[in-house]
Amino acid sequence: METTLGQLAGIVNGIVTGNSDKRITGASSFENATETDITYVADIKYLKMINQTKAGAYVISKTLPEQFRKTIHQDTIAVDLPQVAFTKLLQFFYSEPEIKHTIHPQSCIGNHCHIGYPASIGPYVVIQDEVVLGDRVHLMGNIYIGHGVSIGNDVKIYPNVTILDQCVIGNRVIIHSGTVIGSDGFGFAPDGSMYHKIIHRGNVQIDDDVEIGASNTIDRATFGRTWIQRGVKTDNLVHIAHNVTIGEHSILVAQVGIAGSTTIGKHVILAGQAGVSGHLHIGDRAIIGPKAGITHSVDPNQIMSGTPEMPHREWLKIQRILTRLPDIRTKLLQLEKRLDSIEKKGE
Amino acid sequence: METTLGQLAGIVNGIVTGNSDKRITGASSFENATETDITYVADIKYLKMINQTKAGAYVISKTLPEQFRKTIHQDTIAVDLPQVAFTKLLQFFYSEPEIKHTIHPQSCIGNHCHIGYPASIGPYVVIQDEVVLGDRVHLMGNIYIGHGVSIGNDVKIYPNVTILDQCVIGNRVIIHSGTVIGSDGFGFAPDGSMYHKIIHRGNVQIDDDVEIGASNTIDRATFGRTWIQRGVKTDNLVHIAHNVTIGEHSILVAQVGIAGSTTIGKHVILAGQAGVSGHLHIGDRAIIGPKAGITHSVDPNQIMSGTPEMPHREWLKIQRILTRLPDIRTKLLQLEKRLDSIEKKGE
Amino acid sequence: METTLGQLAGIVNGIVTGNSDKRITGASSFENATETDITYVADIKYLKMINQTKAGAYVISKTLPEQFRKTIHQDTIAVDLPQVAFTKLLQFFYSEPEIKHTIHPQSCIGNHCHIGYPASIGPYVVIQDEVVLGDRVHLMGNIYIGHGVSIGNDVKIYPNVTILDQCVIGNRVIIHSGTVIGSDGFGFAPDGSMYHKIIHRGNVQIDDDVEIGASNTIDRATFGRTWIQRGVKTDNLVHIAHNVTIGEHSILVAQVGIAGSTTIGKHVILAGQAGVSGHLHIGDRAIIGPKAGITHSVDPNQIMSGTPEMPHREWLKIQRILTRLPDIRTKLLQLEKRLDSIEKKGE
Repeated sequence: METTLGQLAGIVNGIVTGNSDKRITGASSFENATETDITYVADIKYLKMINQTKAGAYVISKTLPEQFRKTIHQDTIAVDLPQVAFTKLLQFFYSEPEIKHTIHPQSCIGNHCHIGYPASIGPYVVIQDEVVLGDRVHLMGNIYIGHGVSIGNDVKIYPNVTILDQCVIGNRVIIHSGTVIGSDGFGFAPDGSMYHKIIHRGNVQIDDDVEIGASNTIDRATFGRTWIQRGVKTDNLVHIAHNVTIGEHSILVAQVGIAGSTTIGKHVILAGQAGVSGHLHIGDRAIIGPKAGITHSVDPNQIMSGTPEMPHREWLKIQRILTRLPDIRTKLLQLEKRLDSIEKKGE
Repeated sequence: METTLGQLAGIVNGIVTGNSDKRITGASSFENATETDITYVADIKYLKMINQTKAGAYVISKTLPEQFRKTIHQDTIAVDLPQVAFTKLLQFFYSEPEIKHTIHPQSCIGNHCHIGYPASIGPYVVIQDEVVLGDRVHLMGNIYIGHGVSIGNDVKIYPNVTILDQCVIGNRVIIHSGTVIGSDGFGFAPDGSMYHKIIHRGNVQIDDDVEIGASNTIDRATFGRTWIQRGVKTDNLVHIAHNVTIGEHSILVAQVGIAGSTTIGKHVILAGQAGVSGHLHIGDRAIIGPKAGITHSVDPNQIMSGTPEMPHREWLKIQRILTRLPDIRTKLLQLEKRLDSIEKKGE
Repeated sequence: METTLGQLAGIVNGIVTGNSDKRITGASSFENATETDITYVADIKYLKMINQTKAGAYVISKTLPEQFRKTIHQDTIAVDLPQVAFTKLLQFFYSEPEIKHTIHPQSCIGNHCHIGYPASIGPYVVIQDEVVLGDRVHLMGNIYIGHGVSIGNDVKIYPNVTILDQCVIGNRVIIHSGTVIGSDGFGFAPDGSMYHKIIHRGNVQIDDDVEIGASNTIDRATFGRTWIQRGVKTDNLVHIAHNVTIGEHSILVAQVGIAGSTTIGKHVILAGQAGVSGHLHIGDRAIIGPKAGITHSVDPNQIMSGTPEMPHREWLKIQRILTRLPDIRTKLLQLEKRLDSIEKKGE
């Protein structure tokens, strides 16, 4: 696609400095951009490397101080949020073409299904009975959709995904390969000698604009629903147990695990490999550090680290002192000796 | 299904208080139950919320003290183990119908296979040569069963599961989606500059009544077998390496990892995200805390936490002291000063 | 297969002691070997158990001291690296037969593909357009290969693997079941109220002689490539984020996670459940301990443990002192009291 800097500025509601007729053919990273690509300056440290990119134009921040702006001799578009603007330019240049209605002959569609239009259903996709697919749903291949599943509009599901019976998927949802939605929760009743399986009667509900990473496992509720609310994004290999709720626009980084019946608030960030015990509540806009093991509920806006967790600042302080623990012990033994000697004198 | 409280009491060997002719049509959770549902009182704190459920009847414990029992004005069934009894009621109301013999035309069955009766083999299931399936085996769809695999009776395998050559699966086993059984163990011989693959000649054996969660990886043995014994239950995203043995009725919570040749005893619980190093033994009825990193063998009945592990009580104590580490350090420095000043005086 | 000890010695460039005409029919482990099997003595502790194996012959180290060698009354082959030699004997006896050219009728091959010869393409394999497969590629079944993927010679891909558009796989690569290669990286631009998806234009490149474990997730680069270099071996459930580079012959043990844009050097070992933050560099031949959480770059040849990481020796020391923390605290309080009493006397 070919356009001008001025047209791109229109898309992102930005202000051009330089040649708005400049011909731009794509958007790329600082390192990979060519002379007809636009790139973006993520932060000031990029300006030091500005000779290293061949990019023909930059998206910059409106708040970039004049002294730094001067160092850029190329044409620019100034915006409020450069990364968001750049994201929109990538979508402008590289969005996938609209899907054509194609139902692969080697796919398997059950009875009483509603398939929207257009739909793209790839090879070896299984759709069981009473499934509802909205419009512009793209099921790439080797996917299993269970009985009574409902999927909204503009949903893209990558290969080797499993969505089991009665789960509900909203609009504009993306589900990456290998993910399992609606597996039975891990619930058993022990009698002292063995475990009795608890039948799981609930489902999983995934709301609009959610993106689920590769090889996630999201268990169905025992009763009711496991609920992934609007705008949530999960990275790869995330585990979400039965009856969990993840609040709107929360972020679960890779290999996070959430135990049963825990509720996560809105705009929460769970960093990589963190774990949260069951039946807890994590407040809105809380941040849970990487590898943290959360054993109690967390108030809104808190930043927590460690296993068991504590406020992040306290944790940092303690980690620093930990490295001096050998010195502390040595000093303690010295003090003891000095005290012994004083006491001896005093006798 | 419709029944009476008295009939349900018969199923769970319980004692009715109230109207045993009461009509009951289902079993549900405290929150979701309707007036013709039975629910169960998990513990005394539920009694405080008893106005919040609409349930028509309760399963309660025979040992519930009279003072609490009085607060329940609905009909009850008293049993020894309420959760186990409730599990049986769920199975009574909601067990899956018996499978009908159906082999999907778009499935692929090899030579010299024995397929039991009835069997339900879904679309895009691959069964390689010399596979033995017992009776009432349900392979849902998009499943791969390798050469010479043997599967018992009443086994349910969810979509997108892979079971590789020569693995042996017992009776009444459930395997959830995305799980891989029989991948090569992670074994390489280093020569100082590269790694040489060790061919894995063993298999995986899964005994009766095991349930394997979604997206587990269970590697085949180098020689001999990786062995999951009777009644074991694993949660999602669990990793079990080559030549591991998991003893009867042990529980592996989500994202646990067990390194090669380790043996886990019977009735062990490994909490979420715990890891166990290779060539260790975890004794019967031991409990390993969440996120623990086990580096030595553990005696039976021990509760261990932390990385590296220590007895759970000790770990709790140390974690509490850790939060006071800044104070400890401050106090130490104060003592030092006081001692300096005493010593000065003494001179 | 049947051979003699002398012939096997030729394969591994070893020296026979005893009967080089001895008939050998297989290679097996110490525990599983029969009288016509050869096994190997991994280390001296095996010699104490030498009565417990029925093996007909042993691979031993040339450097085994004479006193130990005397205790072996069976025929032996002495080599420089017994485990590597044994690996070669396993390959001699048990390598898979050469694949026959078979393209399963229930597979789906796109337009403008190049399929090498011979190729073994199993049931329900999807190969999208413009894919290039080298010679002797084995795609077992239920596999999805995206548009424009390129795969080298002698590659084996297990069932239920997903390789997405434009990824490049080298020669002699093995990819185990459930693995996803080329999922979108976890990149979003926040605007304060929601997250905007960053389109991922890069790919994943996997070089020669790599083995990827089961249920790995390897994300494609935002731009450029995520790069797994020659000879890397990954265990199961490993997560590799966008734009990561893993250097030659590095080892990633099960459940390791590497965040975005981090580069791992050559011959690095990352032990199980370790995590590495984004935008770091791990130097050549570094070793990262199990469960370590790496938050800063690591120099070559370092051994690091803990979260946050520190040199392994220091970490060990601190862990030992940690177990004495209750005593340290008690002693500190005692010293304080003694000091109080001295100061009182001094008044």
